[in-house]
Amino acid sequence: MIAAEAGRVYLVGAGPGSLDLLTMRAHTLISSANCLLHDDLVSAEVLSLAAPDALVRNVGKRCGKKSISQEDINTWMTQYAKAGRSVVRLKSGDPLLFGRAAEEIAALIAAGVPFEAVPGVSAGFAAAALASLPLTGRITSSRLLFATRHLAEGQTSGLAGITPQANLVLYMPGRDYAAIQAELTANGWSGETDCLLVSSLGTPAQQLVRCSLRELSGVSHLPAPVVMVFLAVESKASQDF
Amino acid sequence: MIAAEAGRVYLVGAGPGSLDLLTMRAHTLISSANCLLHDDLVSAEVLSLAAPDALVRNVGKRCGKKSISQEDINTWMTQYAKAGRSVVRLKSGDPLLFGRAAEEIAALIAAGVPFEAVPGVSAGFAAAALASLPLTGRITSSRLLFATRHLAEGQTSGLAGITPQANLVLYMPGRDYAAIQAELTANGWSGETDCLLVSSLGTPAQQLVRCSLRELSGVSHLPAPVVMVFLAVESKASQDF
Repeated sequence: MIAAEAGRVYLVGAGPGSLDLLTMRAHTLISSANCLLHDDLVSAEVLSLAAPDALVRNVGKRCGKKSISQEDINTWMTQYAKAGRSVVRLKSGDPLLFGRAAEEIAALIAAGVPFEAVPGVSAGFAAAALASLPLTGRITSSRLLFATRHLAEGQTSGLAGITPQANLVLYMPGRDYAAIQAELTANGWSGETDCLLVSSLGTPAQQLVRCSLRELSGVSHLPAPVVMVFLAVESKASQDF
Repeated sequence: MIAAEAGRVYLVGAGPGSLDLLTMRAHTLISSANCLLHDDLVSAEVLSLAAPDALVRNVGKRCGKKSISQEDINTWMTQYAKAGRSVVRLKSGDPLLFGRAAEEIAALIAAGVPFEAVPGVSAGFAAAALASLPLTGRITSSRLLFATRHLAEGQTSGLAGITPQANLVLYMPGRDYAAIQAELTANGWSGETDCLLVSSLGTPAQQLVRCSLRELSGVSHLPAPVVMVFLAVESKASQDF
């Protein structure tokens, strides 16, 4: 495996938290980089791989407390790389799904800093695996949608236009489970829809809840981060394929 | 890391092909199992990890030549496990996305064989990483849909109902690029849509093509397997969020 190179930025997926779901490539890069800029959700277990002399910096923007701006992160990435460090920009899950990869890539290109992306296991896949829940199938939909209720600028998107044409993995669902139930129901999802909620995936505090969509509003609020999976059981009957 | 246990089946994601995108857990299980039942698309590099005395069996159903049925696979998984082997059922990418995980899980439950799923990096994420293409973003959609044109029973689904409300990763797109262009265009996708095609991901024969949707029908046919990514550039303007 090739170690992290000086002067280069690696946008690396840290996977869902536990060390054993890290890719081999991510493991090598995290262990060999001399600068790690990581999000809040990257686990202590993963960060423990860092070299003893590496600069490790949490650049997470925790729950709206925007003490660190995206511009700060872009500046540090480029400055550390230009100073000759090998820089791993470490994001939980996959580095190109949600998060601000587009802005970071634009900044790296503008600064002329060489970079590459290293994919990771996104939380939705790890959540499904925990419950052995097929994400596509013959009984449920053969399509899978990744979406979030939390968009940029803090606005809540609602789940407008999300119909049971595809199974759904919902990131950053927020605390209002009743609203999710109501919105999906309004969009044609059956009350019998199979739901999986996973809180604090890959950590000792991990919790799983299985319920129907009808029951979702009655589920006790789980600590963030939460990922939800909804299997569109009736989609094939109600759709044209 | 915990080695594969006798009498147990592991539904393991082999990732997109290269060894370095395997998870640590998959690496340990593949190396320690004494039976590997793998799909066609699992790479030789990954299979080379198998223990010297392991039974390694290709159970792929190559392009419609159904010499091996799903029932055969289900029978072998359960029989080998019941005979005391540690069985890794190895699927390319993630084990719960596409493929027949639902049928295999049902068979394992019916047979009373203990099992677990180990997630992997799906091809769409690896393809995006190769091209440093953010899968969601502010300019493109904040949603991502995984779909296939190839459904069970060999029927072609078309891309009915797939609008530029979400970015799209298309697996098993088939050979008719003109039809894909026509269908997406009819569904409201712009001719300027950014398209990425990756053939033979993670192998020495890997090829990448970037084009606009308007140009897709003119792209030379690439060898299977191909994964395509479409970024819904105009979705935010045309949608309500």
